[in-house]
Amino acid sequence: MGTLPSYAEDIDGGGSPSVSMLSEVAAARKITVVGGSIPERSSGQLFNTCCVIGPDGQIKAKHRKLHLFGIDIPGDITFRESDTFTAGQELTVVDTDMGRIGIGICHDIRFPELAMLYRSRGAHLICYPSAFNMSTGKLLWDLMQKSRAVDNQLFAATCSPARDTNSHSEYMIWGHSSLIGPFGEVLAAAGHEEATVIGEIDLSLIEAVRYNM
Amino acid sequence: MGTLPSYAEDIDGGGSPSVSMLSEVAAARKITVVGGSIPERSSGQLFNTCCVIGPDGQIKAKHRKLHLFGIDIPGDITFRESDTFTAGQELTVVDTDMGRIGIGICHDIRFPELAMLYRSRGAHLICYPSAFNMSTGKLLWDLMQKSRAVDNQLFAATCSPARDTNSHSEYMIWGHSSLIGPFGEVLAAAGHEEATVIGEIDLSLIEAVRYNM
Repeated sequence: MGTLPSYAEDIDGGGSPSVSMLSEVAAARKITVVGGSIPERSSGQLFNTCCVIGPDGQIKAKHRKLHLFGIDIPGDITFRESDTFTAGQELTVVDTDMGRIGIGICHDIRFPELAMLYRSRGAHLICYPSAFNMSTGKLLWDLMQKSRAVDNQLFAATCSPARDTNSHSEYMIWGHSSLIGPFGEVLAAAGHEEATVIGEIDLSLIEAVRYNM
Repeated sequence: MGTLPSYAEDIDGGGSPSVSMLSEVAAARKITVVGGSIPERSSGQLFNTCCVIGPDGQIKAKHRKLHLFGIDIPGDITFRESDTFTAGQELTVVDTDMGRIGIGICHDIRFPELAMLYRSRGAHLICYPSAFNMSTGKLLWDLMQKSRAVDNQLFAATCSPARDTNSHSEYMIWGHSSLIGPFGEVLAAAGHEEATVIGEIDLSLIEAVRYNM
């Protein structure tokens, strides 16, 4: 975490190379892009932030991670994201061509109440840009992601960096981005390596499961 | 469901052979018993009810199923528990020698908010007497039970009738009673057949996971 502040970008001030890159791609392909998360500098604070870019290349929504991760296993590992970042205070729901998307970042997936709020606000899909660690990763991308989808009868996606990102490498589990459907079914999944995966989101499945059950 | 009313027992009035049997066993063994659920007749209504019996053989708590199951898959199966039963209105938390237990019955496991309420009321274990069906069984005893335990950092148990019970046999999945720990770990699990399974509940694991994470 020590070097993260030096990578922080000023999104609102327009000084964000990451957002510029996502914006170019979104506009060129005329697609909605839910970005990964970057350190955002704003009013002297740092946030862990994900931007959603519309097909016109403009920022449609910006989610600041609500639940900062902390772990303290004496003699093993101690890490407090709140030493560096400030927690966001707002839910993020964005309407797109494919439906209404709620955004959470990584540890936000750990909290069933966030997913329940997104369902109550009409979300069809919750996207959780993430980076999984060895101690809780498997629980998060598998159990938690599936239960958020099944409990709330909607789609849930995680996207996580593939192998060869250059930080925390001994502590991270790379990859495992996936898309889960409202029955808990795996619709698309990446392995550890960089990959493009395509999953179809059939919104009629949401209506079906909500009606049937 | 058609014949269920004829099996209904008057628990409050003392006319319950099932509770008498559980009471005898609890008193003889000096143990707490969380019973399965039976149709309870009370004031002209039927409830799906689970009794918790203390080591003295007395009823310590009585849970009436809160969330009645309903399924409607046109051309396949239609079933509405609410055609027969009235839903309970109360949470059930009971203090026992091993800790504080919250009770849910079967479809109650489907609702994360119930487990969250039990956690907020200090439960160490949630017991869900259940009977799993083919369409949702696997999701319930596996995904849902684990996520209730992990989300709320407590223990979760399901107990479900073994094979050879004589109703709904083509539609049910028998067995799969299990005990899950606060990390999502399977501490004990039965197969399809009648079995005695023993799992240890180490309450210090709850404190560990809540402190560590």
